[in-house]
Amino acid sequence: MKLAVLGTGMVGQTLAAKLDALGHDVRLGTRDPAATLARTEPGAFGNPSPAAWAAAHPRIGVVTLADAAAHGEVVVNALSGAATLAGLEQAGADHLAGKVLIDVSNPLDFSRGMPPSLSVCNTDSLGEQVQRRFPAARVVKTLNTVNANLMVDPGALAGGDHTMFVCGDDADARRQVAGWLREWFGWRDVVELGDLTAARGPEMFLPLWLRTWGALGTASFSFKVVR
Amino acid sequence: MKLAVLGTGMVGQTLAAKLDALGHDVRLGTRDPAATLARTEPGAFGNPSPAAWAAAHPRIGVVTLADAAAHGEVVVNALSGAATLAGLEQAGADHLAGKVLIDVSNPLDFSRGMPPSLSVCNTDSLGEQVQRRFPAARVVKTLNTVNANLMVDPGALAGGDHTMFVCGDDADARRQVAGWLREWFGWRDVVELGDLTAARGPEMFLPLWLRTWGALGTASFSFKVVR
Repeated sequence: MKLAVLGTGMVGQTLAAKLDALGHDVRLGTRDPAATLARTEPGAFGNPSPAAWAAAHPRIGVVTLADAAAHGEVVVNALSGAATLAGLEQAGADHLAGKVLIDVSNPLDFSRGMPPSLSVCNTDSLGEQVQRRFPAARVVKTLNTVNANLMVDPGALAGGDHTMFVCGDDADARRQVAGWLREWFGWRDVVELGDLTAARGPEMFLPLWLRTWGALGTASFSFKVVR
Repeated sequence: MKLAVLGTGMVGQTLAAKLDALGHDVRLGTRDPAATLARTEPGAFGNPSPAAWAAAHPRIGVVTLADAAAHGEVVVNALSGAATLAGLEQAGADHLAGKVLIDVSNPLDFSRGMPPSLSVCNTDSLGEQVQRRFPAARVVKTLNTVNANLMVDPGALAGGDHTMFVCGDDADARRQVAGWLREWFGWRDVVELGDLTAARGPEMFLPLWLRTWGALGTASFSFKVVR
């Protein structure tokens, strides 16, 4: 499948590399490809620099957000929360129209220090903001509740015995994404939460995730819905 | 131990009954004991009316919030989020001073319909509001992430293989409460999140909890931190 991943941070790198390894035709979108490919400093989480990463993944074209979105039959938003709305504007509403837009971003606000607060929550969510701004896209929120490695390899933790959430206004898109989570990455327990107002749940889960990270001293954990 | 449970809803009933069954000397606090004991309609969750409940638990005195707090060496706030600050004022700062105050409440705001939003979140929490208003109390936030039955009987679900969170500014109080969760109720996995700013995490978890409840069709579920 032709896929677009928007965002060259650790999440974008990890998702694009996995989807490429699965045999998909992947483009990685960034605001300024030349500037991105000139960056040789390692990422904030020990991940490779964009230059090193691109050299290691020669099949994945690093292109503009608009070119990536135009390429993808499905678009994955792996931009930071703060960059999401502006980045998707650059990707272009026409290139998102009618497509499943998998939104894995979190509206983290680092302006008040660590741990971050949220830039939107409670009676709204970033997922809903994206859907309102791009009404013809079929937004599905998922994967934002685990770190990048677990997104694409849940089996690396407890044999995959933990839970992922999916929500979105388009029930067909929601079910498609739930199926891809199983097929592409091996998620075994996918809970469909319903329409996109449910995105407030997984996004507002981040403060608990961040504090649990601090308490455990590792980001390699996940939550299982025990029932 | 002499214990006070404030609030006569399902959570207060369940906690008080369990603590009484364990042999503690429990008082249940309510704003107007005579009015509470005159109520014969069943609770919102199929739980007994206050009158029926009190008749079934003759050892547990149903008294004013102030009398209950004065009695308790440890005080449990099981009031609704909306009633918490005013109720604790009635309980009396002097009766809370120096005591561990176990806060199990959630700042749910039902004024916008269902599912509820939160009356405070993101850069503050109800737990922190309680601590600021009653600085001499040793506030510990816990148990607000499961339904009443699981609070006191985690073993009823998956043999207790799920997680409870504890946070509070007083490290000794936090550890004491973690110990009581194990000893009183049988919680096996208790994660200490640190100071009371961490209460934003478990409180902001409620939207995900509520949506998961909707998706599963049962409130008898809990989250396990898989690591």
